[in-house]
Amino acid sequence: MRAYDILIKKRNGDELSEEELRFFVKGAISGEVPDYQLSAWLMAVWFRGMTDAETTALTLAMADSGDRNDLSALPGHKIDKHSTGGVGDKTTLVAVPVAAACGVLCPKMSGRGLGHTGGTADKLEAVPGFRTSLSREEFFSVVQKCGMSLMTQTGNIAPADKKLYALRDVTATVDSLPLIASSVMSKKLASGCDGVVLDVKAGSGAFMKDFAEAEALARQMVRIGHLARIRVSALITDMDKPLGLTVGNAIEVEEAMLTLRGSGPADLRELSLALAAEMIALSSGLEVASCRKQAEEALDSGRAFETFQKMVELQGGDPAALEKPFPLSPCRMELRAPVSGYLNRMQTEEIGNTAVLLGAGRSRKEDAIDLGAGIRIHVKTGDYVEKGALLCELFAARESMLEPAVERYRAALTFSETPPKVRPIIFGTIRE
Amino acid sequence: MRAYDILIKKRNGDELSEEELRFFVKGAISGEVPDYQLSAWLMAVWFRGMTDAETTALTLAMADSGDRNDLSALPGHKIDKHSTGGVGDKTTLVAVPVAAACGVLCPKMSGRGLGHTGGTADKLEAVPGFRTSLSREEFFSVVQKCGMSLMTQTGNIAPADKKLYALRDVTATVDSLPLIASSVMSKKLASGCDGVVLDVKAGSGAFMKDFAEAEALARQMVRIGHLARIRVSALITDMDKPLGLTVGNAIEVEEAMLTLRGSGPADLRELSLALAAEMIALSSGLEVASCRKQAEEALDSGRAFETFQKMVELQGGDPAALEKPFPLSPCRMELRAPVSGYLNRMQTEEIGNTAVLLGAGRSRKEDAIDLGAGIRIHVKTGDYVEKGALLCELFAARESMLEPAVERYRAALTFSETPPKVRPIIFGTIRE
Repeated sequence: MRAYDILIKKRNGDELSEEELRFFVKGAISGEVPDYQLSAWLMAVWFRGMTDAETTALTLAMADSGDRNDLSALPGHKIDKHSTGGVGDKTTLVAVPVAAACGVLCPKMSGRGLGHTGGTADKLEAVPGFRTSLSREEFFSVVQKCGMSLMTQTGNIAPADKKLYALRDVTATVDSLPLIASSVMSKKLASGCDGVVLDVKAGSGAFMKDFAEAEALARQMVRIGHLARIRVSALITDMDKPLGLTVGNAIEVEEAMLTLRGSGPADLRELSLALAAEMIALSSGLEVASCRKQAEEALDSGRAFETFQKMVELQGGDPAALEKPFPLSPCRMELRAPVSGYLNRMQTEEIGNTAVLLGAGRSRKEDAIDLGAGIRIHVKTGDYVEKGALLCELFAARESMLEPAVERYRAALTFSETPPKVRPIIFGTIRE
Repeated sequence: MRAYDILIKKRNGDELSEEELRFFVKGAISGEVPDYQLSAWLMAVWFRGMTDAETTALTLAMADSGDRNDLSALPGHKIDKHSTGGVGDKTTLVAVPVAAACGVLCPKMSGRGLGHTGGTADKLEAVPGFRTSLSREEFFSVVQKCGMSLMTQTGNIAPADKKLYALRDVTATVDSLPLIASSVMSKKLASGCDGVVLDVKAGSGAFMKDFAEAEALARQMVRIGHLARIRVSALITDMDKPLGLTVGNAIEVEEAMLTLRGSGPADLRELSLALAAEMIALSSGLEVASCRKQAEEALDSGRAFETFQKMVELQGGDPAALEKPFPLSPCRMELRAPVSGYLNRMQTEEIGNTAVLLGAGRSRKEDAIDLGAGIRIHVKTGDYVEKGALLCELFAARESMLEPAVERYRAALTFSETPPKVRPIIFGTIRE
């Protein structure tokens, strides 16, 4: 078998076999297939796409390229949750304790990664004493005691995906549906879970700008799951405005805790309940409607919050800290409405970039994150404001960071005299 | 300017500017644009193609990437000739002396290259004493004395083309029309000529298998010439059977000399006269029909042969050797017709590969060539043979090389009871 022949086959639009894809992925890791052939192949995939069989074979080959977590010591179905990424997305901190409070086993590993804010593991460092680095034994023990654990990813998970992703990033081949789908799903398969609920976001703050693209990606990932024999559901959700009213790390944890305690923003509550209901349904096999009722009950009764508190305590954190406001960075600036009218549009990716300017996210892997930096949003798309009303507050470590950030936020907003059409938080659900 | 942006632009099907292409080509040479970005870009070009303006800009950028020959010390128009490559193609040895005998200045540098036989420079080593390595002064002096000189390519000609070609070869992006056209034309522009006659071959022994592809390539190269301001004509010619009746090195020089002396095969004479007429027309600006008459007169009067003899003498060779049979390799095998019937088809690339098996061509750059090895063809497509009639003779240095070669040649032939349609040697001409 030769990489060249696999390359020419893909270029010509012929279907690659599982054996050929395994050979290619193995060669990517060993260096036997050089970068220039990998990148030409990635570009050919960008143009030709992949069949479901090809995408699944690629996913499995990448999942097998490194370690696979063995979660079999935990009895029952282990359910994971994954978001394609958005601005202000803190649903893991709400949906996972809700699902766990309903009996779902949620051993969840999170990456740190790059983004407008830190990943879930980064955000949780805002909880005093909380440890996200656990041994395998500690991790399992926490899950057994409270149904969930959140820790940072360890081990050599899907190194072929890392290799290909790094090349995609520099060869303009990131935005290929089968490549995105196989990248996400290879990591989920390697994580060892039995099922995963995907939150596929669409809009100006998401990777997928429109609904049709997001739906196609969701369908693709659900099909891969079916062929790879893990349970997958996908929600297609709005990311044309930030989720909730906060963007940052500590500030987002605070908002998630408020939501667990019954007083968070409606969109965050709604999406978290929907995700939790899907997780419960994947785990139990029950109808989603009844799972939704279970989720609401777990949230409204306070059991979900207690579950989260228990996990925090088991991982060395202070559960009482979750009931108080989180300390934010010392420098603060307000942005006020320049006109009276409706907030017509929030260019949401730019709001994410504002958070990076404030110090809440990383531009490079080695950058440090300011946990206290972030944005408190007071007005969202569709709201009416009088001129001079408070639009948002920005928090940063140094005064000099505020002015460029506030400018960026201001430029991301559009006002109008008539109310814009406001989109629902959930567009649709894709199940097997 | 960033290579990534140029890559994404080409991927999206937008037109690249001259500045962007120059940046990219410069980066290819300097290493600033890494191989993995070059190869992803080549694949994007394979899918998207290039506009005439892009192809011309790429050609010029590659031509400028190394040395450009300065032929300005030679007064008048310098005309080059280029073939896209075929089996038994020895037209340079006939067309160039015919054109030179009609007053065209032909300072011709040839590569050694890979192929079924050696390049023109390799073939001429079969002439005792003939030197193909000349100083610039010697080269110019020979051209001034007899109108032509054939020498091996020197200098750092179009290194960006070498770099990109090496990558194309391993990334399945060789067969892209704008990439082929710019590769050929960049070397011709760097060669310093004022005009070039292209012999674009189509058929089973050519890179372009069918006429439409060859025609498209010819048109593309003529357009590049127009935009780059050199004169270009292209003939589209048949390569569905070998040209003439010989394939090899010494054996091809012998056939070319016979043709210059009035007794070569009709197809070689016809194509050489047509190419020479185009060269004369590009140089003089006269009608091709009258140039054709000049070419015939130069050939039939023996002046073209005298011109060639004079060049051989000026470059240290023995002109008398050109009037005698050339010594061939000692081992010989015949192939005879297995049935009575018409020779219906010659899989011509396989006949070229037969010559390589005999030792007449190189598989790798460092391979040596056996100048005496080759094939003498007795029967060509369309001919009727009785069972047992002589089809060809093969010549090689060692007996053991003959059997695999004769098998390969045999397998390349198809016979039929009815005569096949025989194609003309020239399909068409593309001029500005």
